Amino acid sequence: MQVGLVGLGKMGYNLALNLMDHGHKVVANDVNPESVDKLSNEGASPAKDLKALISQLESPRTIWVMVPAGDVTESVIQELAKSLEPGDRIIDGGNSNYKDSLRRAEELNEKNIFFFDVGTSGGTDGARHGACYMIGGDAKQFAEIESLFSDTAVESGYHYSGRAGSGHFLKMVHNGIEYGMMQAIAEGYEILDKSPFDYDYEAVSKVWNNGSVIRSWLIELMENAFSKDANLDEIRGVMNSSGEGKWTVETALELEMAAPVITMSQMMRYRSQESDTFSGKVVAALRNEFGGHAVVKK
Amino acid sequence: MQVGLVGLGKMGYNLALNLMDHGHKVVANDVNPESVDKLSNEGASPAKDLKALISQLESPRTIWVMVPAGDVTESVIQELAKSLEPGDRIIDGGNSNYKDSLRRAEELNEKNIFFFDVGTSGGTDGARHGACYMIGGDAKQFAEIESLFSDTAVESGYHYSGRAGSGHFLKMVHNGIEYGMMQAIAEGYEILDKSPFDYDYEAVSKVWNNGSVIRSWLIELMENAFSKDANLDEIRGVMNSSGEGKWTVETALELEMAAPVITMSQMMRYRSQESDTFSGKVVAALRNEFGGHAVVKK
Repeated sequence: MQVGLVGLGKMGYNLALNLMDHGHKVVANDVNPESVDKLSNEGASPAKDLKALISQLESPRTIWVMVPAGDVTESVIQELAKSLEPGDRIIDGGNSNYKDSLRRAEELNEKNIFFFDVGTSGGTDGARHGACYMIGGDAKQFAEIESLFSDTAVESGYHYSGRAGSGHFLKMVHNGIEYGMMQAIAEGYEILDKSPFDYDYEAVSKVWNNGSVIRSWLIELMENAFSKDANLDEIRGVMNSSGEGKWTVETALELEMAAPVITMSQMMRYRSQESDTFSGKVVAALRNEFGGHAVVKK
Repeated sequence: MQVGLVGLGKMGYNLALNLMDHGHKVVANDVNPESVDKLSNEGASPAKDLKALISQLESPRTIWVMVPAGDVTESVIQELAKSLEPGDRIIDGGNSNYKDSLRRAEELNEKNIFFFDVGTSGGTDGARHGACYMIGGDAKQFAEIESLFSDTAVESGYHYSGRAGSGHFLKMVHNGIEYGMMQAIAEGYEILDKSPFDYDYEAVSKVWNNGSVIRSWLIELMENAFSKDANLDEIRGVMNSSGEGKWTVETALELEMAAPVITMSQMMRYRSQESDTFSGKVVAALRNEFGGHAVVKK
């Protein structure tokens, strides 16, 4: 089918190629005209701006937005909403907060524009060769655009999860689980690293990924990483994060439930971003005050 | 090759069948004579006790012990050590604490008996059709018995990790990681369960296992579990544990390193085993004392 694609970054560009491989006609726009030119050489129809994109699409239009979550997604959807017509559809394939998706679905619904919140997993390679989608939105309308997902996902790699908001919520929780799994894996390798034994981490990752209980794509990725840098000497242990882990913890608090492992994973990321902490100074100062214990001087 | 197998429980029995499928000759012993009879019908040579087992094996003997970790493993290895001869080999395929393995390797080494500590992962199905082994022990001797592991593991599913102790240490850390991954996954599903959306957990597990970052054997097992009991209504959330998670936390403490996620996973298991806690009573009492906050009466 015909689809408008806004955002030709690492995810969007690869998704466009994937869509065209499966016979879909892509009308493409990006803030960077060079990306649009490059993709038009691959067979996409270029659109210099969102109005041009909309004018090239037949009704009812389907526009897939793959831009950074937050302000950029907000402004793109706001601008699209001004020009789109009843029956048109907007897909937000980014990592938006599900609360924004709930609000956008409601706002667009008032204009009879259908909104789909689609959590996309699997990275850039997934976008190119088979992604994983968690999709919220109108059930009937979903059937009309299902081929966009079924054609570009891995086998069994897309799931319609219910009303708008449910897709991004599911992706948020997926990422929260990912944070916890990664921290557990990370702690395990650090115990090996501090152990009295002399492990080959690439070989360890390989055996863990063949027949063990923890076999997983993440352990497979560790085998790749250790094959390039046997002891990760080339990188520092600073763990940045995008928003989904934080939102998962915030959601657990709103739901008033215990999620200590996901929470701790997020907190350890924050800790890794600091070379020293005020909390550390506080504890050192207190130990010194009550027990005269030595402090490490600056 | 010829191998003595002590312990025909769920793991040992399946391992014996796996070994025989690959042409190895198994001399089998178990405390339960019925298990020995049953396996002898499958082609194993029965041994009524450990002495009979030893007498049926040609020198140098190789004896694979698959009995519960702790006292049972200790007494079996002690008894074997009395009758074995220099050059013989003992494989401990159970989940022994690596410190016991270090000690046993040393004790047996004094008698010129070779000890291999083998962490075995993949469950009973793995033991039958392809296990995952983490193997510590003498490198030269390992080459002599490697076919036992290469034949019964999945492809790339065995790893010689160095001196005695390193195999069980690696398996311990594997299980620690497993605890953390499981708790992260568990918290994620609970957030879904308390969310305002109505998720089909089997379908969620399926999409998470196809193309997503958290795809893993554990998520695959959740798809199986939810296919049988869509909301896990039939079971209580009591999380028991064997020793490896606890040992991983103890090891992190000995190494004086932070492993908060694995630690918290273990603590949440203990919490799940109690229907009420004294710590909860303490906090409730304190809130009542300083602020007059209501307590829940027994």
